[in-house]
Amino acid sequence: MDSDRQHCDTSNGYVHLQNPHLKSMTSDFLYHFNLGTATHDLPAMFGDVKFVVVGGSATRMGKFARYIHQELGLPESEEPQDLADTDRYGMFKAGPVLSVSHGMGMPSMSIMLNELLKLLYHARCSNVVMFRMGTSGGLGLEPGTVVISKAAVDACFRPKYTQIVLGQEISRPTELDQGLVDELLHVAAQEEGLTTVAGNTMCANGFYEEQGRLDGAFCDYTEQDKLQYLQKGRDAGVRNIEMESLCFAALCKNAGVKAGVVCVTLVDRLRGDQVTTPHDTLKEWELRPQKLLAKFIRSRLGMK
Amino acid sequence: MDSDRQHCDTSNGYVHLQNPHLKSMTSDFLYHFNLGTATHDLPAMFGDVKFVVVGGSATRMGKFARYIHQELGLPESEEPQDLADTDRYGMFKAGPVLSVSHGMGMPSMSIMLNELLKLLYHARCSNVVMFRMGTSGGLGLEPGTVVISKAAVDACFRPKYTQIVLGQEISRPTELDQGLVDELLHVAAQEEGLTTVAGNTMCANGFYEEQGRLDGAFCDYTEQDKLQYLQKGRDAGVRNIEMESLCFAALCKNAGVKAGVVCVTLVDRLRGDQVTTPHDTLKEWELRPQKLLAKFIRSRLGMK
Repeated sequence: MDSDRQHCDTSNGYVHLQNPHLKSMTSDFLYHFNLGTATHDLPAMFGDVKFVVVGGSATRMGKFARYIHQELGLPESEEPQDLADTDRYGMFKAGPVLSVSHGMGMPSMSIMLNELLKLLYHARCSNVVMFRMGTSGGLGLEPGTVVISKAAVDACFRPKYTQIVLGQEISRPTELDQGLVDELLHVAAQEEGLTTVAGNTMCANGFYEEQGRLDGAFCDYTEQDKLQYLQKGRDAGVRNIEMESLCFAALCKNAGVKAGVVCVTLVDRLRGDQVTTPHDTLKEWELRPQKLLAKFIRSRLGMK
Repeated sequence: MDSDRQHCDTSNGYVHLQNPHLKSMTSDFLYHFNLGTATHDLPAMFGDVKFVVVGGSATRMGKFARYIHQELGLPESEEPQDLADTDRYGMFKAGPVLSVSHGMGMPSMSIMLNELLKLLYHARCSNVVMFRMGTSGGLGLEPGTVVISKAAVDACFRPKYTQIVLGQEISRPTELDQGLVDELLHVAAQEEGLTTVAGNTMCANGFYEEQGRLDGAFCDYTEQDKLQYLQKGRDAGVRNIEMESLCFAALCKNAGVKAGVVCVTLVDRLRGDQVTTPHDTLKEWELRPQKLLAKFIRSRLGMK
């Protein structure tokens, strides 16, 4: 494994892995991507990556990469291909932008992110900015609104990611980079017809009971209990609810990588549970975080 | 929504949903499958299902359905197609067998299982048996061994699935059906060259730190700490480690559905972390739970 002391120092903009064991490994195989230091030239393949965007579905992340490819005016001959040779995750590269899927839920995000951070480390990427984009339930927002997360919070509205490691609870902070929040708001303000707010994003370990929905296979609380809980979240600054941001915020922070979360809301959970908006409208809403991030990336690269 | 009193009674073999709110819904849309009571005739599509097998990847579950299709001698014209019109999960039907993917981790399993249990309920399926099959890390077992789970346990080796619902912790038991364990062991004993053991399965919320691996992006414990933890698990009856069984066991039990978990081990975690076995060997091992479940289903259907 290629590594050196400077490589682990956050001040120089490299990804900061906090694992002394990596130094003693002769090679590292990223199992869920089917990519490895012994079989792939990771610096040659990924060394120029400056922006990483992650999202739930591999199909959507492939489309996003092709969209970015167009937006950056990259040659047609270099159309993004899936670089992860597994059916676990999809990984596509468009110039300096890497687009990777993470599936649903924090454990799936955690596997992907551990391997992605190691990949960026092995590839000696520097000054990388990472984003999660996705869909979410809103709290007191018109569906279609885009939420830029100030912090990810757990289902008790606390900004911490709790893991069980060797049978013991450990917690990591989950505040997101405030400079990125401001920059994203600034870029969004220039986009006509896009309603964007900054707020906290609650991250749950399920879609039904864990988000207070009444329409899962199980429910032993009343609608009033549910609304009381959601209102308590809204009062604590929560503006939307999804299932991956807490792990994403904590692990990026721990690796010294600046990170942002941009999700569109598909439903106002203070008004209902089921997503009943017509398919075509949903498709248009799903594109909103993509458009915002494309604009952000173009702006960072000095393109109009 | 079709429902009646008898329909909710476990004694008659129907799926038992514990959610009084479902009765007042005029229709139910299973968002992550893109299937609904208003748009699909679920009893006609799924009413004859008797066996449900779930596993991580949609590709693998499609292959499994085609394999079962052959094993049951079903007509070529009825080759299984993906019935879930989303890129979240894959769902394939081969006669009385439904094969569904759940992605990685308990939250992803939880979303799928809530909607799958509702689907079985709406379709008025009765006397259904459910299995999760997959891959895992072993504890003190020769890689390639198949583990039939007696109980799923959490990362503190407790047989309970803990959820945060409306900000409060609730726990559900995760013991699996002992009759199914015995039946699976009996079927496995007839399969030449298949090493099968019964034991507890630990279910973690991550692949790296949460399973005591030394090769993730982060690690602040020693190899000795790791081995002490894993040995403690082994002493508590844990024979393998994966990431979905706890949620699967708890929710099936809560719905009154008999459930089993069958996973092959790809590595002995007391000896190492990385999966370095050649690809072709891994592929052969991955088929072992499939073969065992095919044999079980054939046996239940009175086929040789």
